Amino acid sequence: MNSLIKIEHGSGGKYTFELIKNVFLKELGISESNYTFEDSYVFNKNNEKIAFTTDSYVVNPLFFPGGDIGRLAVCGTVNDLAVSGAIPYVISAGFIIEEGFEIDNLRKIIRSMKKACIEANVKIVCGDTKVVEKGKADGVFINTSGIGFFEENLNFSYRNAKPKDLIIINGEIASHGIAVMNERHKLGIKGSIRSDVSPLNGLISMIKNIPGIRCIKDLTRGGLAEGIIEISLACGFGIEIDEASIPINKSVKSACELLGIDPLYVANEGKIIVIVDSKYGDRVLEKMKKHCYGRKSAIIGRILYENGVYLKTISGMRRMVISMSGEQLPRIC
Amino acid sequence: MNSLIKIEHGSGGKYTFELIKNVFLKELGISESNYTFEDSYVFNKNNEKIAFTTDSYVVNPLFFPGGDIGRLAVCGTVNDLAVSGAIPYVISAGFIIEEGFEIDNLRKIIRSMKKACIEANVKIVCGDTKVVEKGKADGVFINTSGIGFFEENLNFSYRNAKPKDLIIINGEIASHGIAVMNERHKLGIKGSIRSDVSPLNGLISMIKNIPGIRCIKDLTRGGLAEGIIEISLACGFGIEIDEASIPINKSVKSACELLGIDPLYVANEGKIIVIVDSKYGDRVLEKMKKHCYGRKSAIIGRILYENGVYLKTISGMRRMVISMSGEQLPRIC
Repeated sequence: MNSLIKIEHGSGGKYTFELIKNVFLKELGISESNYTFEDSYVFNKNNEKIAFTTDSYVVNPLFFPGGDIGRLAVCGTVNDLAVSGAIPYVISAGFIIEEGFEIDNLRKIIRSMKKACIEANVKIVCGDTKVVEKGKADGVFINTSGIGFFEENLNFSYRNAKPKDLIIINGEIASHGIAVMNERHKLGIKGSIRSDVSPLNGLISMIKNIPGIRCIKDLTRGGLAEGIIEISLACGFGIEIDEASIPINKSVKSACELLGIDPLYVANEGKIIVIVDSKYGDRVLEKMKKHCYGRKSAIIGRILYENGVYLKTISGMRRMVISMSGEQLPRIC
Repeated sequence: MNSLIKIEHGSGGKYTFELIKNVFLKELGISESNYTFEDSYVFNKNNEKIAFTTDSYVVNPLFFPGGDIGRLAVCGTVNDLAVSGAIPYVISAGFIIEEGFEIDNLRKIIRSMKKACIEANVKIVCGDTKVVEKGKADGVFINTSGIGFFEENLNFSYRNAKPKDLIIINGEIASHGIAVMNERHKLGIKGSIRSDVSPLNGLISMIKNIPGIRCIKDLTRGGLAEGIIEISLACGFGIEIDEASIPINKSVKSACELLGIDPLYVANEGKIIVIVDSKYGDRVLEKMKKHCYGRKSAIIGRILYENGVYLKTISGMRRMVISMSGEQLPRIC
């Protein structure tokens, strides 16, 4: 590993994993086999099952079609808790603000956090504010951490996925990353390109007690590709997804083609995949379609007996999906 | 309020309070009377009493005599939990790293976090890593959030303080802020100036079941002065502290005089004040002196019947201690 941090270390792909493995886990003395990619840490304390998670948000620009850093910070942490099966309960908010930042923009961000909290039925209960000199940050960075509780004894570890299980997604991929990029670089791509940032705990509550659900993963940095790779690594089985069945907005797709970006790796902020016993696939799909954040849900793939993560392309070819070593779109969350 | 964020908004003093009140609380729709200055949010869930807290760390420089940002990030959150009466249990760690940061320094920071975790008997259980472009952050910023549980039904709200209660501090003030400043500005002040950054949950466990303890506060940004002001505001009574009885290291005191800085407002990272029924003052003091982080403990003041926060100076004068409107030492935590 090189001796300096590179932008790629924040990609959520191969470099991030290596940094976690070779630096964080190593120095903390945590063995790799004890580390999981799960979105929340779940533990038991005095018969109470609790989920705990943290994420920092450094998205640039702070405001983009469909959302802003505030909505992102609330939804991201809510979703990390919800995919573990927990009910998000309280969140914290830590702000690092650059000197000279407009207070009116801070107000807008906080109002947006409040709105997202109401939608997700969580409360911000503690916070922290730090200010750094002009040029030592970039507007505002937000950390949210969250605590969730379990009403049922659900265990949604990625390790639960089994061969023949189906993979269901709740809608169109890649919208968030492209919306942010379009706004940041003033690409001027026309059409309905809006971030999908949204709290998915309501959608997840609707399905989480259906038998046969193995696990749920939210697809953020690294997109659908890194999401399925992580599940494959955790459960030890391969995965195949079917390109033709993956929902994608037309304008987003054109933008990806134009920019030479693979939408599989583009960040989402309102997308989950649900891994489910094939017997229950239709039932889960039907339920998901009834929710406003699940109308375009689709079965997009399945767990394999053999190793390897594959995409069956529209032309019928099968190509491997590998962890990305570069960084297509930095600072999208 | 001005329309731009100023360095003073991060001081932990008057401006920070105004930002919290006029922007955060207002936009979140939280009434001021429902807001407390407590270091942790404490709540009950299914008969379990839980403390939750968050803090971001932006200290500059990252390494200073007596500690570094890693030790600070662990101890700060541990102490916020411990002063509420909770036993710190798990913490999260969110990193925002500037492109080009030396990975060896990141290793040093993580090792230091691990060491502090072992000392405090807590575990880092979840984390997050973001990378921003060179010039968009300052080395590394760390957020830690933490969860603590209560073994006893303690209620250490600042509102508990009553007239005639004594104020006990666990040792010398102002060492952290001066150590950081000495290092940052290469002031070259000689003598034993080292940060006091340390986890105080062990010390707090030794005393927290002694009857008569009203509350405990850790003294970070804003120092002893802002700490007692917050307690006075919360409980509605005045406070008097006695300058002659406040422990301070000689070199730190000289440095403060030289720099024209009031040590009362200088940050500590290993100091608490304990507010205790005067009947139990000696017992608490004696216990505290037995702990390695409490050897220089002293009774430094008391809660008054009347309003106002005062310092009885060494010369016998009485002057008001008011919330600071400027920022003496930015980025000390």
